[in-house]
Amino acid sequence: MEKIVEQTLLYDFYGELLTEHQRTVYEDVVMNDISYSEIAQERGISRQGVHDLIKRCNKILADYEEKLHLVEKFIFIRQRVEEIQGLTKKAGSMDDLSLVRQIEKISNEILEEL
Amino acid sequence: MEKIVEQTLLYDFYGELLTEHQRTVYEDVVMNDISYSEIAQERGISRQGVHDLIKRCNKILADYEEKLHLVEKFIFIRQRVEEIQGLTKKAGSMDDLSLVRQIEKISNEILEEL
Repeated sequence: MEKIVEQTLLYDFYGELLTEHQRTVYEDVVMNDISYSEIAQERGISRQGVHDLIKRCNKILADYEEKLHLVEKFIFIRQRVEEIQGLTKKAGSMDDLSLVRQIEKISNEILEEL
Repeated sequence: MEKIVEQTLLYDFYGELLTEHQRTVYEDVVMNDISYSEIAQERGISRQGVHDLIKRCNKILADYEEKLHLVEKFIFIRQRVEEIQGLTKKAGSMDDLSLVRQIEKISNEILEEL
């Protein structure tokens, strides 16, 4: 996975567990793509301070994922549901019964994961 | 939701964020249904100590859910996927195309949630 996508996903899931201050700076850097220097100046902290905060946030978020694996689980579910959705779009152009059987198989796989 | 089901679900999701000691006692009480007195005796702590530990764990788990809402999200997804599964079992007995359209609708709802 691309680093930025991974960071965003981890933040989506576990961001609420960071402090308000960490969240604000993290969003500026990762989501809003503002430079370290600009953030440092704006918040009256050093460039190194911003760098350390981001590094620390990434570690906190990664530690939660290592323990809970919820991002991994959600990615699995999303992919399977997208497959189901893809299959439904083929309705009419392929045999509907075999299509339904494939959907059944995928939904079973998801339920085993939950 | 039944209290025991709710406790088990919260523990399934966030249990890894408790300490090893908390986990062991929590599992004894909530999953294995061992009495406070028995656990207290076994671990050389007071009955009140066991009671406090469980209360504290429940609060920790509930606080994570209040921030992350991941149990809520998973329950939503599971219900929808079960609906899809239920529909696939009707294949052949109802018009397959309308069945597929219903499945498509539900899968869209899930993807909006993710």
